[in-house]
Formats: sequence, C-alpha cells, structure tokens
Amino acid sequence: MDIGIALFDRVTALDAVGPYEVLQRLPGAQLKFVGHEKGEVRTDNGFLGLTVDHTFDELPSPEIIVVPGGIGTRALVHDQVILDWIRGAHETSKYTTSVCTGSLLLAAAGILDGLDATTHFSARQLLTKYGAKPVEDRVVRQGKIFTAAGVSSGIDMALELAEQLTDSTTAKALQLMIEYDPQPPHDAGALHKVGPAVLARMQELAALRN
Amino acid sequence: MDIGIALFDRVTALDAVGPYEVLQRLPGAQLKFVGHEKGEVRTDNGFLGLTVDHTFDELPSPEIIVVPGGIGTRALVHDQVILDWIRGAHETSKYTTSVCTGSLLLAAAGILDGLDATTHFSARQLLTKYGAKPVEDRVVRQGKIFTAAGVSSGIDMALELAEQLTDSTTAKALQLMIEYDPQPPHDAGALHKVGPAVLARMQELAALRN
Repeated sequence: MDIGIALFDRVTALDAVGPYEVLQRLPGAQLKFVGHEKGEVRTDNGFLGLTVDHTFDELPSPEIIVVPGGIGTRALVHDQVILDWIRGAHETSKYTTSVCTGSLLLAAAGILDGLDATTHFSARQLLTKYGAKPVEDRVVRQGKIFTAAGVSSGIDMALELAEQLTDSTTAKALQLMIEYDPQPPHDAGALHKVGPAVLARMQELAALRN
Repeated sequence: MDIGIALFDRVTALDAVGPYEVLQRLPGAQLKFVGHEKGEVRTDNGFLGLTVDHTFDELPSPEIIVVPGGIGTRALVHDQVILDWIRGAHETSKYTTSVCTGSLLLAAAGILDGLDATTHFSARQLLTKYGAKPVEDRVVRQGKIFTAAGVSSGIDMALELAEQLTDSTTAKALQLMIEYDPQPPHDAGALHKVGPAVLARMQELAALRN
C-alpha cells in the first residue's frame, strides 16, 4: 500500500511527520515522500531539510495521499504540477487527506468544492476563497477525504485513518507505540480556549517568523 | 540561542520534529540539526531522509540540546563521538533534553547516573542498565535535564521547556500556533491504559518493523 506524502519548500514539518509516524507502522505500508524534484526541500523556517524521494510523475496513484501545509502552500495554490497530481491521485485514491493549510491545496485542486473542511484556524477565510466550507472540527471527514486542523492535528487524523484501514485494536496499538497520551501543560491548543493576550502573543510570534 | 537537535541513522522522526516544531517558534531560536557528518540520514524504517546541517564538532556548546530516540540508539550507546558531544554540551547547556530512547544516550554518556528519567515504555529496563532510574511520567525533570517518554511526548516536553525559557503566555501561544488540542480517537497512549490484546498487537507490529 503506497502512501504518498507531498513535500515542498516551506512545508511545516510536523504536518507531514505526524501522519507519517502513525501510518508507517501499518503492516504493508510503503511511505513515499513525493515532490516536484528529487532531493532536499527546506521547511517553512529553513531550519530542517527533508528529502523528496519520488517525483509527482513517478507516483501518480498512491492508495493514500497526505498533503501537509506550511507557508509554502500560498504559492502552490497556483502550481499546476502539484494541483494536477492531487486531482489525478484523488481519482483513484482510497483516502485523500490534508493537514493544516494542506487543505488549501486540495481546495485549489477543486476537490473540496462545496464540502466541509478544516485547516489551520488562521487560514479559514482562505479556504472559503477556494470553494470549501470551513468548519472548526479538528478532523473533518467527507467521504474518502479527511482534512485536519493545524499542524499537530495530523496525528489524530492518522489514527482515525488507521482505524478505517484496519480495526480499533490496531489503531490503539499504533497509538501506544508512539505513546500518544497527550499531557500539554495548558489547555490552550484551540482558538476558543485562549484569551486575547495569548492570541496577541501568537500573532506577534507569527509576525516574527514570516 | 542555538538549539542543537541530534540526528543519526534510524532516528524516529517525530522524536526530533515534535520539539523542533515547538521550539523553532521561540523568538531568537536557531534550530540546528547536528550529526556525525553533514548530509542525509534515514529514519528508523528508511522511509524519510532528514538533513544534518552541522557536525557535532561544529556545534559543541548549544544552549539547548535535544537527543531523539529510535532503533539507531542501540548502536550509538557505544559511539564515543555522540557520547562525547552530549557530555561536552551538557557541561555548559542551559537545558539538556531527550525524547523516547534518546535518554539511553544521555544515560550512556553518564549524565543520568542515579537520576530519575523516562524513555519509551518498552525500553525502561535498558535505561536501568545505564545507571538511570526509570519512572513512568511523561516528562521527567531533574535540574536542567528533561527526559520525555515515547515519540509524541517530545511535544509536551518542549512546551514545558518553552515556558521555562519565556512565560506561560508565550507557551500557550506556541501551543495555539501548532493547534495542539489533542483529540485521539481512543485513550490508549500509555501502557497502563491498554489491555493485553492491544499490547500483543503492538508487539506484533513492532516485530514486523525490526
């Protein structure tokens, strides 16, 4: 079972690595990192290099596709190579998925027209622009399409997907293997859970990075 | 502020990428991926390539070190290059941290002698062998040393570390930025939370991979 995870310059690493870390442990899964050209891409901040092992041309029809987000998606909504790959792969995929602003690319490819979808909370308006209906859930399923919210949510999405592909015992075993027993020091991981001071600080930090 | 994250062949990607994704968003943080030689290393399953940008020699004294785990650690407990780097960096570090079986390397370097520490639950006995006292907490702090449990726990550890380095508003803002509002489909992320069928399935899946 080929699982194609898209990589591109200025990708957010955890968007891709969260689902990868769950799905690579499925029996028979072949995880393949795919992009425009083989070789290294750098993450959103440039701090980390990740390797593209397969071009989009070489992997036209994986059983599952995962499209991560990152600031790099803003240019890619006009890139016909990745949009054609998403459209083509989606025709025969068992599941088509995105994490964070990866859903902007699914939407720009036309496969979210009129459908509920999620993305990083800061990008909900952008999702509307490309024809999807943003909702606030962490993982949104519409038929064979799963979209997940910001960055870390790909782990939850992948566990749901793993259960669809196998059974609940296996999904729990995968969760145990990665010891996903979250204990964040605060309950501040969603917009509706924080006050204006935290939101303002987040916006300051985001402005420093971009 | 230099944050040195060790990479090596057969590393577990999420062990490194979880803390990276939190800490890269700290103002002034320079995340540097460090290893024996510059260039690509492959993850535990070989599915993903990550880039080492700096040799251990080039980054002897980062303010923070992060040592991830993975099956590759089993050989590295005898590797004097990485153990010397850990020992040397620890002398002047502000914080010395590990995720998953990365704590085996801290222990083999001699810096966990007689101290409480955690690791992936399957490796607790090994940790004892190298002189540390394994405990079951998700994140264990002993002075400036933080050890985290398996794979995904590095995210929780990094949020605690971020709060130590800044303040709770900033730590919450970082959590919001990565939308870390975990909603796993099951509550099965720790050994004491699962029954024998899930544990047996996990052992089967682990045997398939190694």
